Amino acid sequence: MHKKRPVNIGLLGIGTIGTGVARGLVARSQILARQAGCLLVLKAVVEKDVSRHGLAGLDRAIFTDDYRRVVYGAEIDIVIELIGGEYPAFDYIKEALSNGKHVVTANKEVMAKHGTELLSIAKEHHAGLRFEASVGGGIPLISPFQRDLVANDIQAIYAIVNGTTNYILTRMAHDKLDFNLALKHAQKLGYAEANPANDIGGLDAAYKLAILTSLGFDMDVNFDEIFYEGISRLKPQDFSYAEEFGYAIKLLAIAKRSDNLVEARVQPVLIPAESLLAKVDGVYNAIYVSGDLVGNILFYGQGAGPSATSSAVLADVINIAQNISAGRDNAPRFIPEKKSGIKPMSEIQTRYYFRMKVQDKAGVLARIASVMGDQAISISSVKQQESDASTNTAEIVIMTHPARESAVQDAIKVINKLPVVKEISNFIRVEAI
Amino acid sequence: MHKKRPVNIGLLGIGTIGTGVARGLVARSQILARQAGCLLVLKAVVEKDVSRHGLAGLDRAIFTDDYRRVVYGAEIDIVIELIGGEYPAFDYIKEALSNGKHVVTANKEVMAKHGTELLSIAKEHHAGLRFEASVGGGIPLISPFQRDLVANDIQAIYAIVNGTTNYILTRMAHDKLDFNLALKHAQKLGYAEANPANDIGGLDAAYKLAILTSLGFDMDVNFDEIFYEGISRLKPQDFSYAEEFGYAIKLLAIAKRSDNLVEARVQPVLIPAESLLAKVDGVYNAIYVSGDLVGNILFYGQGAGPSATSSAVLADVINIAQNISAGRDNAPRFIPEKKSGIKPMSEIQTRYYFRMKVQDKAGVLARIASVMGDQAISISSVKQQESDASTNTAEIVIMTHPARESAVQDAIKVINKLPVVKEISNFIRVEAI
Repeated sequence: MHKKRPVNIGLLGIGTIGTGVARGLVARSQILARQAGCLLVLKAVVEKDVSRHGLAGLDRAIFTDDYRRVVYGAEIDIVIELIGGEYPAFDYIKEALSNGKHVVTANKEVMAKHGTELLSIAKEHHAGLRFEASVGGGIPLISPFQRDLVANDIQAIYAIVNGTTNYILTRMAHDKLDFNLALKHAQKLGYAEANPANDIGGLDAAYKLAILTSLGFDMDVNFDEIFYEGISRLKPQDFSYAEEFGYAIKLLAIAKRSDNLVEARVQPVLIPAESLLAKVDGVYNAIYVSGDLVGNILFYGQGAGPSATSSAVLADVINIAQNISAGRDNAPRFIPEKKSGIKPMSEIQTRYYFRMKVQDKAGVLARIASVMGDQAISISSVKQQESDASTNTAEIVIMTHPARESAVQDAIKVINKLPVVKEISNFIRVEAI
Repeated sequence: MHKKRPVNIGLLGIGTIGTGVARGLVARSQILARQAGCLLVLKAVVEKDVSRHGLAGLDRAIFTDDYRRVVYGAEIDIVIELIGGEYPAFDYIKEALSNGKHVVTANKEVMAKHGTELLSIAKEHHAGLRFEASVGGGIPLISPFQRDLVANDIQAIYAIVNGTTNYILTRMAHDKLDFNLALKHAQKLGYAEANPANDIGGLDAAYKLAILTSLGFDMDVNFDEIFYEGISRLKPQDFSYAEEFGYAIKLLAIAKRSDNLVEARVQPVLIPAESLLAKVDGVYNAIYVSGDLVGNILFYGQGAGPSATSSAVLADVINIAQNISAGRDNAPRFIPEKKSGIKPMSEIQTRYYFRMKVQDKAGVLARIASVMGDQAISISSVKQQESDASTNTAEIVIMTHPARESAVQDAIKVINKLPVVKEISNFIRVEAI
């Protein structure tokens, strides 16, 4: 049936995801062969410490601790990189591509920081470089941007791309848990790592945003220009107030056209409760894209896990193998041409939510409004919570009209010094979507 | 910049969608050229009656009323078919492919009825045949099935693929409108045609389901085996009861694996109110896909309109042009191999909702339950509405456990003859999703 020669695969890293991919390659070899037009053979697996992960049911003979057996192995056609992290993964990918190997990777950090460079190297050596699994697990995203949405001028991307934080926010919103308890639940269920810093701090989402921004806006993104912050400063009362105002709170990766630049930032934001993104709960991911032709579309699904990630990795492998067996070039069609043009955070304009503790006496709101007015920040609505009589403290929540970030930061400094203000407990940006 | 020769396009049909596509080709020629790697030139437009639609700002010289100028035109590389309907569109596509032209079409009826045949002809003549716009407007769907989900064994597809009916159902559910009034609103807003039969009767959704089933289950679907019904028998009280039971009512195109066959049917169904599909309101489309690796994913967006449809048509054109300019084959990689294996409607098993008018006296429910029991249909819950004293009539709603369609049809016949039953007002299938 398959007269073409087999396509040989080398796997770098056999942790959770790698094991899933390796099992998929072996267990569904017939389906994959029909799709690829040739047999896909897992020839070598590189792992420093096989005993740690076990052999995943594979022949011990294909294991090696020498990455060069894959990256330089004469018989290897496709290198699957599932080590994760920037180094040595970046070096291995670079060497593999320079050596004419096709590469499939799920590595968001490497693609966020070195994507354009690697795509250029791939093109130069007529090698394929696919990274569908780097954002949104198995949800088709990279390929839709590269193929299906190419006639569009993309206006905006709003994305829930970190399942850990979305799970925590869902528990905080629905069950009124505080952040630490919600995080503990997430860890217990395996949705958060023992060290969850990269997830809850927004870094993981920022990597994915860099990749989406590069694709959506055809831009060589400088990762360091992407602003990100996490969710640990959110309190249960922020969710209650948000709900009262008709909003949900989500950690969004946002990229949108703004003047001749692109805003690219990861932040917890208030979004309208009736929006579809607000209804994305638990560990799920959802990516909302606004294009000038297509209008608003949304992609939703599991953003992580060995099975969903395998779906994307194996699709990339099949796609490359199809081209190999048909004698077609796998080189990337597209290297972003434009230099990074990310708008500095201080220049963005958006609406804001403030929660403050103030002295419970007349004229306080007038003082705050006056400071805001000096910075051209106009208030759209205010809610004052019943005061704590023992400490003579009231809590007020202020929603503003669109204002400039730098003006808001200046106002915060002044408000913090007002004798009538005990603290600015939180401020959160608001997106209309 | 573009050293490659231009790719020449012929357009069949310049109605609403055709005008949108023609305008897109002209207005964004620079963007498209960068994406395609060569200029895309609209060389000829075939329209019987140009005066009806105007010239869409195009040079009059490219218009012709002779389809052969496009289908046989030596200079034409890509034929875009936007005539719609089965004939003569099918013949034109067939002739174009047989003549080695690449074809891009948005024609759901032709692809539903003749997809496999046309793909085979395309393959034979090394011609491309793309139809991303035939389902879900600009939402990437065909391409994800053909590329991104290929490693999966697809378990089920649940799709809202008809915006007209989804708008009507949304108005019926949220504003308690009856069907006729909701339809009038839809017509007034341009969401329903003057003759809305194909939309409200489920035929439009059935065409799209045939295409999705063929892609998802790699099957040469016989369109005549697809069961479909429309939404006109739904009443406002069905929505009220559904809500009380925790459900929404949606017209779903359903394809799912069932034993060694595939269920493929278009029906109004009750789905859990908390499911994401239940929250898809208005003219929007959403396609939910369950795969063994990827889990559950959802695609959402505008399913119709000249702009969204252009997004898909132009992407297909660009994709073909990229291959032409790179010297790559455009022939379809995939022709469904398996013969159609659609499960007969009478053999499906699902849960059911019944609404009946019965005599308001003791023992009625016992009689109905006994008839159902004879057919091995077990009742999961019952709601009895306060009776209409003047006519001595009560309304009862019954939800069943999973039962076989043929048994339910038999039970309906018997129940209809029970003296205590005045009418079975409605019965609707229930999907857990």
